[in-house]
Amino acid sequence: MADNSSNQMWGGRFAAGPDAIMEAINASIGFDKRMATQDIAGSKAHAAMLAATGIITDSDAGAMKEGLDSVLAEIEGGTFAFSAALEDIHMNVEARLKEVIGEPAGRLHTGRSRNDQVATDFKLWVRDQLDAAEGALQALMRALVSQAEAGADWVMPGFTHLQVAQPVTWGHHMMAYVEMFARDLSRMRGARARMNECPLGAAALAGTSFPIDREMTAQALGFDRPSANSLDAVSDRDFALEFLGAASICAMHLSRMAEELVIWSSAQFRFVALSDRFSTGSSIMPQKKNPDAAELIRAKIGRIFGANVALTLVMKGLPLAYSKDMQEDKEQVFDAADNLMLALAAMEGMVRDMSANREVLEAAAATGFSTATDLADWLVRVLGMPFREAHHVTGALVALAEKKGCDLPDLTLEDMQGVHGDITGDVFDVLGVHNSVASRVSYGGTAPSQVRAQVKRWQEVLG
Amino acid sequence: MADNSSNQMWGGRFAAGPDAIMEAINASIGFDKRMATQDIAGSKAHAAMLAATGIITDSDAGAMKEGLDSVLAEIEGGTFAFSAALEDIHMNVEARLKEVIGEPAGRLHTGRSRNDQVATDFKLWVRDQLDAAEGALQALMRALVSQAEAGADWVMPGFTHLQVAQPVTWGHHMMAYVEMFARDLSRMRGARARMNECPLGAAALAGTSFPIDREMTAQALGFDRPSANSLDAVSDRDFALEFLGAASICAMHLSRMAEELVIWSSAQFRFVALSDRFSTGSSIMPQKKNPDAAELIRAKIGRIFGANVALTLVMKGLPLAYSKDMQEDKEQVFDAADNLMLALAAMEGMVRDMSANREVLEAAAATGFSTATDLADWLVRVLGMPFREAHHVTGALVALAEKKGCDLPDLTLEDMQGVHGDITGDVFDVLGVHNSVASRVSYGGTAPSQVRAQVKRWQEVLG
Amino acid sequence: MADNSSNQMWGGRFAAGPDAIMEAINASIGFDKRMATQDIAGSKAHAAMLAATGIITDSDAGAMKEGLDSVLAEIEGGTFAFSAALEDIHMNVEARLKEVIGEPAGRLHTGRSRNDQVATDFKLWVRDQLDAAEGALQALMRALVSQAEAGADWVMPGFTHLQVAQPVTWGHHMMAYVEMFARDLSRMRGARARMNECPLGAAALAGTSFPIDREMTAQALGFDRPSANSLDAVSDRDFALEFLGAASICAMHLSRMAEELVIWSSAQFRFVALSDRFSTGSSIMPQKKNPDAAELIRAKIGRIFGANVALTLVMKGLPLAYSKDMQEDKEQVFDAADNLMLALAAMEGMVRDMSANREVLEAAAATGFSTATDLADWLVRVLGMPFREAHHVTGALVALAEKKGCDLPDLTLEDMQGVHGDITGDVFDVLGVHNSVASRVSYGGTAPSQVRAQVKRWQEVLG
Amino acid sequence: MADNSSNQMWGGRFAAGPDAIMEAINASIGFDKRMATQDIAGSKAHAAMLAATGIITDSDAGAMKEGLDSVLAEIEGGTFAFSAALEDIHMNVEARLKEVIGEPAGRLHTGRSRNDQVATDFKLWVRDQLDAAEGALQALMRALVSQAEAGADWVMPGFTHLQVAQPVTWGHHMMAYVEMFARDLSRMRGARARMNECPLGAAALAGTSFPIDREMTAQALGFDRPSANSLDAVSDRDFALEFLGAASICAMHLSRMAEELVIWSSAQFRFVALSDRFSTGSSIMPQKKNPDAAELIRAKIGRIFGANVALTLVMKGLPLAYSKDMQEDKEQVFDAADNLMLALAAMEGMVRDMSANREVLEAAAATGFSTATDLADWLVRVLGMPFREAHHVTGALVALAEKKGCDLPDLTLEDMQGVHGDITGDVFDVLGVHNSVASRVSYGGTAPSQVRAQVKRWQEVLG
Repeated sequence: MADNSSNQMWGGRFAAGPDAIMEAINASIGFDKRMATQDIAGSKAHAAMLAATGIITDSDAGAMKEGLDSVLAEIEGGTFAFSAALEDIHMNVEARLKEVIGEPAGRLHTGRSRNDQVATDFKLWVRDQLDAAEGALQALMRALVSQAEAGADWVMPGFTHLQVAQPVTWGHHMMAYVEMFARDLSRMRGARARMNECPLGAAALAGTSFPIDREMTAQALGFDRPSANSLDAVSDRDFALEFLGAASICAMHLSRMAEELVIWSSAQFRFVALSDRFSTGSSIMPQKKNPDAAELIRAKIGRIFGANVALTLVMKGLPLAYSKDMQEDKEQVFDAADNLMLALAAMEGMVRDMSANREVLEAAAATGFSTATDLADWLVRVLGMPFREAHHVTGALVALAEKKGCDLPDLTLEDMQGVHGDITGDVFDVLGVHNSVASRVSYGGTAPSQVRAQVKRWQEVLG
Repeated sequence: MADNSSNQMWGGRFAAGPDAIMEAINASIGFDKRMATQDIAGSKAHAAMLAATGIITDSDAGAMKEGLDSVLAEIEGGTFAFSAALEDIHMNVEARLKEVIGEPAGRLHTGRSRNDQVATDFKLWVRDQLDAAEGALQALMRALVSQAEAGADWVMPGFTHLQVAQPVTWGHHMMAYVEMFARDLSRMRGARARMNECPLGAAALAGTSFPIDREMTAQALGFDRPSANSLDAVSDRDFALEFLGAASICAMHLSRMAEELVIWSSAQFRFVALSDRFSTGSSIMPQKKNPDAAELIRAKIGRIFGANVALTLVMKGLPLAYSKDMQEDKEQVFDAADNLMLALAAMEGMVRDMSANREVLEAAAATGFSTATDLADWLVRVLGMPFREAHHVTGALVALAEKKGCDLPDLTLEDMQGVHGDITGDVFDVLGVHNSVASRVSYGGTAPSQVRAQVKRWQEVLG
Repeated sequence: MADNSSNQMWGGRFAAGPDAIMEAINASIGFDKRMATQDIAGSKAHAAMLAATGIITDSDAGAMKEGLDSVLAEIEGGTFAFSAALEDIHMNVEARLKEVIGEPAGRLHTGRSRNDQVATDFKLWVRDQLDAAEGALQALMRALVSQAEAGADWVMPGFTHLQVAQPVTWGHHMMAYVEMFARDLSRMRGARARMNECPLGAAALAGTSFPIDREMTAQALGFDRPSANSLDAVSDRDFALEFLGAASICAMHLSRMAEELVIWSSAQFRFVALSDRFSTGSSIMPQKKNPDAAELIRAKIGRIFGANVALTLVMKGLPLAYSKDMQEDKEQVFDAADNLMLALAAMEGMVRDMSANREVLEAAAATGFSTATDLADWLVRVLGMPFREAHHVTGALVALAEKKGCDLPDLTLEDMQGVHGDITGDVFDVLGVHNSVASRVSYGGTAPSQVRAQVKRWQEVLG
Repeated sequence: MADNSSNQMWGGRFAAGPDAIMEAINASIGFDKRMATQDIAGSKAHAAMLAATGIITDSDAGAMKEGLDSVLAEIEGGTFAFSAALEDIHMNVEARLKEVIGEPAGRLHTGRSRNDQVATDFKLWVRDQLDAAEGALQALMRALVSQAEAGADWVMPGFTHLQVAQPVTWGHHMMAYVEMFARDLSRMRGARARMNECPLGAAALAGTSFPIDREMTAQALGFDRPSANSLDAVSDRDFALEFLGAASICAMHLSRMAEELVIWSSAQFRFVALSDRFSTGSSIMPQKKNPDAAELIRAKIGRIFGANVALTLVMKGLPLAYSKDMQEDKEQVFDAADNLMLALAAMEGMVRDMSANREVLEAAAATGFSTATDLADWLVRVLGMPFREAHHVTGALVALAEKKGCDLPDLTLEDMQGVHGDITGDVFDVLGVHNSVASRVSYGGTAPSQVRAQVKRWQEVLG
């Protein structure tokens, strides 16, 4: 191992070896080995380009390719021995490659440096997460669309301030989350498009005098183009921050939906029943079904946004080009990505499994004179009252209903006309929660017809 | 005051009026009056649509338009009397409109609510900031491109770990920031495109039964389309969070450049001289020129990212649709936007005014055997040595130079051949900082030719 | 204006005056005028010390004292004309003092600098907030203790995962918050004790050669001692960060209580009725009582913790001693302090005014076999069953009750003995929610006796 | 394993077992096994108390103690087989205890629950970190005091705005950090004192009807007292947040010192030489010594403060008492604690090893008329000039020196008297950097005598 030690390479003139503290704070192999696949893909693309441009021989490039494939097989097979003395995944792979193919390994690093190599590896890793998030978001959206399709006309309370405001439909509520996650999806795609420039070939920070072909490596690795400034290429971590930003907003959405599921599954609300699969119980209180998965999803925003804060703090005020501070970028992103994927998968599962309590929802929607605004709107629309006057009349009718201990649809026409003589029997067409939701046909409104149109639109988009 | 009081509208049945604490915590007019222009634009679009769809008369709509214009004139003229009892900008405008045009004002609120109104106003305000940021970023980029053009071949040290690593060019360093700010610009545009859906017509949360035309208001206000779900429309603050996210990354870039300017203007570095305009001095130490503007710019990331944290905390776990918590969104965004614009403008000014100390930069670039990698690359490229062997030879030559007290270009050919016999006089073509930078012609590299190509590309883009 | 301009003092050699951008980013008078009282108190203490040590004459010191008092009167009276050209509160006061008392004003700055002056002013301001927070917390705790005293034996559900777990008492729940706010109080006091060292006399950064008496100024300003290192004294903002940290935890507590109030005042829970004073209503839905104050309090953690993040970002990586970045400290702390005080006052008011719905609480507590653990504990305690076996028996009894459609206290002794023959009639003493809570007499438990003991303890502490 | 499965205990009535996603999101054993020592200590204290109060037999308690010791030995010996199906450390230990001692294990959980158990374990773990931080801070402070003692009179530039302001001493600068870390130490101690209340016996949330003795378990575990409210005891995570808050401020101090070391070890500053032990080099650029450890320390504030943000987000708005969200508390605290300890140890090592370049420091201190304020102060002190006039005269003298191309001490008395006739030869006593620092003898000033006094004070405190 000693001969391969990365430390040996730069450490020749150091009297003292780095001690245990330095190794503990300095080595990244404990976490950056997660980028092994990306590192080897990058090296293979680089080797092929070096041969194509005549910088190395085809024979060397062939040996590198075979050797790298065999190292990858060792890593994937779990037989690779990672070494902390070799500090990072790049040196671990290169040292092993030298053992496997010998002298040609020494030419692989031509025209590149660890600085552009780590930027490339990390970008490839983050890009994979952006793609994975896209898939996970689409799966969750499909689950929500299914719920919405089933319950396009189930009536439930629409809340503001957690107070019943107006009746809405279950499908409408589900589709609200589809819109949110669709924006998350769009943000992930936007981040992917923006970050898809290849740092490889930026070398340490200044580019290189070897006649490399950066277009070729960029294309081989699926990038749209090489990055246009080598100093920027090795000092840029925007792609990680933008992923964390998009992940944070997505986690915020998840926290809102999780909060609703926790509240809705309380004994006081009973709006939904979560499946046993995503709940835990009590050994002696059989009715107790703790919404553990929902609570944990709600909490995930902590570490995901915490990672965003962490990386922002790390990058603040760093002079160009590469500073070692930037090694603190990966663990945060790895943890945030893992937890985002987990939370999306758990939410998808919960949404698929959950059952709405239609009777409870409908009964709750009908409380609190929730169709008072429908009545007021009728007065405006049909009788031509100014908005504020209609509100006054409605208030009087609600007060009357309250006094009689009934709801608005239970008032008689005489009751109504006692308050305002112009009211006709047609008014009952807008009272009652089903009438209410059916009437809200403005684009994006809660009417079942509108909900079904949105369901159809999204089914086409999501395939 | 009493008649206009928003409190009166909902407060009829409340025995006690809200006391001073409640007014202090509840009223938003102190800050949301900044959205007066947006609020009135939204109302005008709404009124025109109400008339076009026959919901109100053309005569009412005409009165509303004139009245709203006159209210706007009062606000812009500074003669409008804002009232805390009326809580927010919406009620302040509406109450004044009623005073101005009388009864028709009561019809303006038909088919909308404060919930979609505030969402629309705030979106319009944020959209204006995205546009303003675009302009400010372009101005800053132009200033950087000008510096880069002037100094495309000025040599300076390229740093890693704040240690001299390789020579680079001033232009190359300036263009690195152009790339960063270009990504910020792209993020602002991406955010703008994603958020450009109109909430107006979502009403309280469920849409409306009035036959409104949401496409029409959306177009009138410059939106691409109406938002597709009314629950989402009134509970969404993604657009503010995404703006803050983009602003935060931009502020991080500014903090890095500001840090460099602070370090570069220290007596120890003397790489740049900042203009008097953006510095402050000491009454008795004439050489002391404090880079105050750079320091303040460096610090702005605090409040900008702090606003991001604040709004994320506010939104975490909020059930749908509207909760009063969301009123805490605006001050954070206002402050972040103001400070981002200020920081961009100050940075642009500093960049325009600053002078690079060419001699100091070039001398610093030539220290520390900064062309050692050029030598090693030559050994690989010309003599065909493996990379790691070339490093060994280079190390020996550097040690020799160190022993002789000279730099690499000062070694004789004999010195060189004493270490490795195959070295030829051509090696001197890559030593020396000018040769070094000139050789790094890989795409995006530091060579003046590459820098000039990038300058040209950006000049075309920026116009 | 010209003569008083702070810029003139250091700007003599600057060809160009700072332009509008620089003034906008540089001037702090817009916000630091809030420290006028502290600034003048500091100057008076400094002047008195300068005279006592013979550095200035008693006559000069007398003039300064009178002059400063008169400037303070102008500021408090609203007649002082603040000038942005004079940048900050220190220069504004000093310039005005010179107008008022003439030449002696020029001696006030002897042995100090703006760096120690601003540190002193800001510390005094923060210290005042720590004291104010102490008062506000005590008032809130008294309100909670009153609620606890009244409802020491009112039974309500104790929740875990927002699922009913075991009956607790209203008083117990209120006292949980007293413990939380008591820790906040302790943190505020701890922060105050730690920060109470006086920076005045640290001068620019190195101390001074004037024979000043730092003990004297420290005592005059209520500090425990002078700070022990002048470099640290002018570069330290720990006191602000620690205040923000304590405020953040307090705001987190407030957010939890506010969340409970929002949930408890929903139509589904109806656990509490908030007063009209801290709610808002709907003009047409009379039952709708939006818990606006609770929602706004819940949201305040955003800006308070956001300020914590902002200042942490500002301070990260700043070299000693003073950097202009630190000017970004005040607005964040001012805003956080204002909003913490507002939130505490609003919460106190809500707690004082709110009424618990005793019947609803008790009925909710009795649902879901909430005394199952009491039954299991009885089996362990009285029959000596191992814990896990007792849970098995309890599970069987709960299943029986569920099958019979009744709760545990409604089972007959025969029912019970059918499951386990050793059960005796004494078991009924622990079933039923009142028996349950009465039995939990462990220290800190929910039994009314325990609650009353804690109420008494806190009444004595709070006076 | 199946029979012991925690899932089985509550899962009886669940048709479906939790699937892979649920296990992945729900199980905590992957990280909470770090609390094994604390968990077993808590169980032993609980068992001893149960016996002392007669709730269980001495024989059972004896078996538990022996069994727990043997489980601990297995864990410490690395032979314990942790099971994810058993979810957490508590169930893993209890299940293994049952295998080891059989039936009595079933009585251990009497009078407690997982809620108070996890709160106790986590508190004990955090308390250990507070103690460890205290030790690490003292070690770092000792290293700084040693540097200060050696260099009490070495002159270096004192900076404001990274511009040379006045000469200070190396010892003074080192002692500034001693003051900072002393406040960190004080904060750690304050946090420890405040959190030292024992949650054990709070049971699930309401206390228990078993006659437990909470004073006894509190004392056995080193707590000052039992916590006074059982609801609060299981829902409180203040102790973790306060630790993270103190750790964050400490990390901020570390970032400032690390920044200075990075700047000071640049080729442009050369103020210090870091040891090879805490640097890394370049294989071909021998003079390049990257301050990796300093950079990594500077970056650690990211994840430490990120953890603070994460836990604050998790706790925001959680209703009482226990919610599963709170399971997200530990990984953040573990990671923050590990990295704080690592950063403190690395900084201590770097400080011990580093060498100040005395000549470079002194030369830098003498540039830029850095004793101009000494001259001005002399004019005030000796000639009785008003402060502002003294500054005018000093400015003229500096201008003269600048014109003559010399520094202030190099002016002749005639030069001086040409500007102001009252100046005497005594003035030269305060010019020159050694005179300057020696004169600043105000308490806490930079004079070597003051530095030595502070060194002595701290040596006594630190032992």
